[in-house]
Amino acid sequence: MTTPGTIPISQLRAFCQDAFEWAGLSAADAATGAEVLTTTDAWGTFTHGSKVLRGYLRRLKAGGLNPAGQPGIVSEGPAWAIVDGDSSLGMVTSVFAMSTAIAKARQTGVGYAGVRNSCHFGAAGYYAWLAARQGLIGLAMANDIPSVAAPGSRSAVTGSNPFAYAVPAARHRPLMLDMSIATVAGGKVYAARERGEPIPATWLIDEDGLPTDDPASYPEHSVLTPAAAHKGYGLALLVETLAGCLTGAAITWQIKAWMGGDLTQPTGHGAAFLALDCAAIGPDLPQRVDELIDEVHAAPTAPGTEVLVVPGEFEWRRFAAAQDNGITLPGDVLASLQESAEITGLDLRDYLPTGAA
Amino acid sequence: MTTPGTIPISQLRAFCQDAFEWAGLSAADAATGAEVLTTTDAWGTFTHGSKVLRGYLRRLKAGGLNPAGQPGIVSEGPAWAIVDGDSSLGMVTSVFAMSTAIAKARQTGVGYAGVRNSCHFGAAGYYAWLAARQGLIGLAMANDIPSVAAPGSRSAVTGSNPFAYAVPAARHRPLMLDMSIATVAGGKVYAARERGEPIPATWLIDEDGLPTDDPASYPEHSVLTPAAAHKGYGLALLVETLAGCLTGAAITWQIKAWMGGDLTQPTGHGAAFLALDCAAIGPDLPQRVDELIDEVHAAPTAPGTEVLVVPGEFEWRRFAAAQDNGITLPGDVLASLQESAEITGLDLRDYLPTGAA
Repeated sequence: MTTPGTIPISQLRAFCQDAFEWAGLSAADAATGAEVLTTTDAWGTFTHGSKVLRGYLRRLKAGGLNPAGQPGIVSEGPAWAIVDGDSSLGMVTSVFAMSTAIAKARQTGVGYAGVRNSCHFGAAGYYAWLAARQGLIGLAMANDIPSVAAPGSRSAVTGSNPFAYAVPAARHRPLMLDMSIATVAGGKVYAARERGEPIPATWLIDEDGLPTDDPASYPEHSVLTPAAAHKGYGLALLVETLAGCLTGAAITWQIKAWMGGDLTQPTGHGAAFLALDCAAIGPDLPQRVDELIDEVHAAPTAPGTEVLVVPGEFEWRRFAAAQDNGITLPGDVLASLQESAEITGLDLRDYLPTGAA
Repeated sequence: MTTPGTIPISQLRAFCQDAFEWAGLSAADAATGAEVLTTTDAWGTFTHGSKVLRGYLRRLKAGGLNPAGQPGIVSEGPAWAIVDGDSSLGMVTSVFAMSTAIAKARQTGVGYAGVRNSCHFGAAGYYAWLAARQGLIGLAMANDIPSVAAPGSRSAVTGSNPFAYAVPAARHRPLMLDMSIATVAGGKVYAARERGEPIPATWLIDEDGLPTDDPASYPEHSVLTPAAAHKGYGLALLVETLAGCLTGAAITWQIKAWMGGDLTQPTGHGAAFLALDCAAIGPDLPQRVDELIDEVHAAPTAPGTEVLVVPGEFEWRRFAAAQDNGITLPGDVLASLQESAEITGLDLRDYLPTGAA
């Protein structure tokens, strides 16, 4: 089950849907989770796509995620809301929260939704894009258990705290950036370990605060470095503020590891979503963003670079290819899907084209 | 005039105030400008403090800044406003805009103020702090004429686009980060050039796209690199979106260089300010931020680091020292103030303690 295979988006979505329903989610919630994971894979962000399904399934069955949980608004004002995720699947809570932020923004111009009692929410960019596909600027972020050093630390101080934005364009696909505040996301270290590859010595520091290129040291004996030192660290604390301190969510070490640890207990993650309604604030925004993108595309390039790209451009190219030809899943994703199949009793061969796996 | 000197905050403020009034600003607007520059120096951010006064004075006299200009709201909704700066001093427009965002946030929970027809606004952190000192979370950002490369480019693609936030705490001073999306701000390259020091080879690329350690090459023959490559570049485009595309301001190459170039024409800079009202959304935020700061201070450190700091901590230490003992100005700042004295006909010795200069 380590041979790469290609699968139509609809079939991957069906597998995720059936797996989530097996775990007790309603058809609607299962569809939300499946759509997020499948879109993420279609963008080529395999570290945060269906590969993580197995982790959610185990936690849903153990009780640390509540398959019947339903996110709801616990307090709100004209331009904001605090959402309690009720320990439901992070994707269900996050789609609810961003939809709330969008609805607020349509009323007042700007909307903030802060989230408590959530869990790992997959790719932050998905929720930012939810806003952009409806013509709004979207921002999405979440905190996580510490895995990233601060300048001068010898252990983890902040989470990798994903931060994403998406901006609608007119002729072009939306600008879309989904970044970890670490030099790289932990998922890339895990992926290197699973593939048996060393990593650049700038990604991790070991327990003495020294660089290491051994992905197997992570996360037990090393931590990620913050991107651009104090800048990534500073952004981590902004995310912690908006997703954690402001929302009533757990922060830093109060958060439980979502993949390992005690699968019977909620993780307590926080998240934050912002939406700005361009139609009200700046109706010509999509055209101006087109101009900006055109300008970047026309800029002089260094040797070895044919044309400059804007954030999200690689993702949208892969998305279009996936729509046409299906998604070619790396071996580690296929292996993980096979684990999900074993957990659920589903047969992956029922979803993969003949000979793909 | 190159010997370092120490000056009380109040005296430096008085000099800036008198200089701005000489240039035709009202006493109130001059006080706003003087307060921003002086606070910035008190934080030790000398690249963006009174050192830049001379540039504003020249532009105010030449007409590219309008000493009688008054910022005003051109469109608004419950949680947002677009402010036209009327080519007044950037500090005057920015304080007006952040005050507008704060007022909106107090009504709805969240406020966004986008700005057009502004100019260089000094230290973004000042405006973020305006919110934090009133108990709100503040974000401030601005676009600028391109001076930073994109991954794969051989010339500038985005501005250094400053991005700042400030978060109120209870026992502690506010968290406060003020960063350029470049590896370093251009002001640091200028400062190194004026001091005759080489710079790290990671700060700039030359016209062939290769690293250079020569600060004299900047900005004519080199450009800044983006912090953490695609991450800094991606944040630059977010700032360009919120401060430029959404506001009606000039973007990228439409912006005029504020320090050189044609001093008789407006620069067209944009800016954006966001405020979130913690009292409404999360009243225990300051206490939770205290906990976060305490946790960082207690974290294990690498050899050579006594205690970890949070963003803004160095600035607040220098601010306290400046309040007690005055500001010790570096030689390049004193030389720049002497130029401002020559422009205005003021005598710097009337403001500096005897023997300081």
